[in-house]
Amino acid sequence: MSERVKYTVIAGGVTAPRGFQATGIAADVRKKGCRDLALLYSETPAAAAGLYTQNYVKAAPVLVTREHLANGSAQAVVVNSGIANACTGQQGLADAQKMAQLTGDALGVAPEDVVVASTGVIGEYLPMDKIEKGIKTAATLLSRDGGMFAAEAILTTDTTTKEFAVKLTLGGKEVVIGGMAKGSGMIHPNMATMLAFITTDANVEQKALKNALRWAVDRSFNSITVDGDMSTNDMVVMLANGQAGNKLLTEADQEYGLFRDVLLLVCTELAKMIAQDGEGATKLLEVQVKGAASEQEARTIAREVAGSSLVKTALHGEDANWGRILSAAGAAGVPFDPDKVDVYLGDLQVAAQGKAISFDEEEAKSILKKSEVTITVDLHNGNASGIAWGCDLSYDYVRINAHYRT
Amino acid sequence: MSERVKYTVIAGGVTAPRGFQATGIAADVRKKGCRDLALLYSETPAAAAGLYTQNYVKAAPVLVTREHLANGSAQAVVVNSGIANACTGQQGLADAQKMAQLTGDALGVAPEDVVVASTGVIGEYLPMDKIEKGIKTAATLLSRDGGMFAAEAILTTDTTTKEFAVKLTLGGKEVVIGGMAKGSGMIHPNMATMLAFITTDANVEQKALKNALRWAVDRSFNSITVDGDMSTNDMVVMLANGQAGNKLLTEADQEYGLFRDVLLLVCTELAKMIAQDGEGATKLLEVQVKGAASEQEARTIAREVAGSSLVKTALHGEDANWGRILSAAGAAGVPFDPDKVDVYLGDLQVAAQGKAISFDEEEAKSILKKSEVTITVDLHNGNASGIAWGCDLSYDYVRINAHYRT
Repeated sequence: MSERVKYTVIAGGVTAPRGFQATGIAADVRKKGCRDLALLYSETPAAAAGLYTQNYVKAAPVLVTREHLANGSAQAVVVNSGIANACTGQQGLADAQKMAQLTGDALGVAPEDVVVASTGVIGEYLPMDKIEKGIKTAATLLSRDGGMFAAEAILTTDTTTKEFAVKLTLGGKEVVIGGMAKGSGMIHPNMATMLAFITTDANVEQKALKNALRWAVDRSFNSITVDGDMSTNDMVVMLANGQAGNKLLTEADQEYGLFRDVLLLVCTELAKMIAQDGEGATKLLEVQVKGAASEQEARTIAREVAGSSLVKTALHGEDANWGRILSAAGAAGVPFDPDKVDVYLGDLQVAAQGKAISFDEEEAKSILKKSEVTITVDLHNGNASGIAWGCDLSYDYVRINAHYRT
Repeated sequence: MSERVKYTVIAGGVTAPRGFQATGIAADVRKKGCRDLALLYSETPAAAAGLYTQNYVKAAPVLVTREHLANGSAQAVVVNSGIANACTGQQGLADAQKMAQLTGDALGVAPEDVVVASTGVIGEYLPMDKIEKGIKTAATLLSRDGGMFAAEAILTTDTTTKEFAVKLTLGGKEVVIGGMAKGSGMIHPNMATMLAFITTDANVEQKALKNALRWAVDRSFNSITVDGDMSTNDMVVMLANGQAGNKLLTEADQEYGLFRDVLLLVCTELAKMIAQDGEGATKLLEVQVKGAASEQEARTIAREVAGSSLVKTALHGEDANWGRILSAAGAAGVPFDPDKVDVYLGDLQVAAQGKAISFDEEEAKSILKKSEVTITVDLHNGNASGIAWGCDLSYDYVRINAHYRT
């Protein structure tokens, strides 16, 4: 991100921008007493854009939301955790449509202006009586500071809520962008990731919103990996309700770049929270690839390294195994000359021109002991760079996933 | 494989065919006292074909062997375990060439007719004094029943040797095909896998040999995955010395199909041994994809399912989580209609038309408890099928790889 970007990080998430209300309640879909149903509502109609999983097995809510956002506008979001409503056929589609209908009825909004999302176990049907009761209750509890309850209600095996918000100035007006996300396992998004919802009170043309979202998601959510498994339910949705009162922002606008950069910041922070809270993770891994022929190639290599089981286990064991880093880079399908590549752990160089160099093993160990570790791979093959984020592969990942369903 | 294939499985591996000698000795490259240097020798010049890793970071022995096999003939193979001679630059290339030279000198063979392979830690240099002493010793110990010592000397974290041999009749002559392999971690081959050496006394035209090998490797070694990490050192090499005395076999020959099918059998058995002995593995997983539009698509989906961390952990936990199977299938980049897909564990159907069906959880559990588990995914989208093999993801995979180097 360039130095010109001026913004301030503020508290909160999806209700930080003006005119958004939210809540999260316990509807007993997931387990008794924990919040599992979230509602997000814009007091006025909002421009909306969505990006969805590229998995050929798409969950019912993904199919319904894609249809509802085809016209580029929305006013409410309903999300349940606990059951993914994926692999549920016609019944699942009917259930997702019913969720939109119930939410629309409760909020006085057309069902087509409701975004529906689900996350949890695949192959089970939603308990629609509980969902119906939950939506009705939640609609009465919406508030301008309820974002944190919504952020909690969308979690599954996540251990922390994931919220972020910033303010900036657009066209002389103060504008806020806020977001919430959930991640944990089955995280290897393509075009979109798990669940992330971003709100802004900026006045943004729908096409500009969609293109900015796609650009930012490619460089944030699409650059994280926890376990290489692409979900059936991945979805990123953004709503812009224009309540900041700035002049309509289009792609031709000089300030469009600023908006996009700050949106990328919000997406990146949320994406990093997902990587850091990956199932069983004890460390956040950031892989920076420099000196690549193109940004796309740099990101592809970075993600291959961040996703390598052998790099991830070495990170868990705090072992400076740079050979695995180089091998993973070479497996990404992007050509480069291995004899030119330098590898760094933090600021410590551990390989030069594709070969071993002597380095201080104690220093390497102390870098790997930290909760955030950066690996840098310099290809010396061009001027482009790219980043990906991941986490270590621990015993706990195996424990959590060996018995998730039972 | 069709019913017409007539063959007999026999004892032994690379020295089962006539005219091949081998041995494996302890050269102290890996750890004191364990066999780590293998020599394989054909008493007469042999037609040879090789397939190599598609990783852009290729180990020095891969580069040297590719050059040596360019003319389609070879007479000896030298392999060390313990050090991969990868990411070792010019020094590594010189060391690999020196290994060929030393082997050639010891056996009275041109260095260009020597295949060189290494496997082990990346980024370290070979102790050439020990290698030299080892090659000289090994050359004096070659024997017609030394195949099992060679099979032992090429192992690293493998827990068992991997050998297989069959005999069949070609052109009225009895022909033998034998092989050995090593695998364990960093197993996700593309075009070739880890190390596998196959010998035959059949008289086969070099082009026919190469095409048969590529065809068989695509359906065997390239259809296994342990951890999704493609190695820098993968190599499959086959030598055919013609000592069976059959008329030269070409692709035009009616019996070429028989030869190819039996070669596939040998490669498949070795590949399955690698998957079964994957690092930390407790189970062999076979994924059969049926009803696909093409064999290639079926294999792609099968390998995606076999490689899914979530499928692998569920298998380890003996959890009939069919939703993960369907989700992994959908992530393979191959289009299909999820609402048509049936999923089976062994013979037990666990999902129909992409949705849950009730099944006996106890029966599912007893199927998943076995040491070999078959998952079948029927796409109902065509007539092609394909298979991939993998293993479960266990705590031991993490343990083994968290501290491999240190």
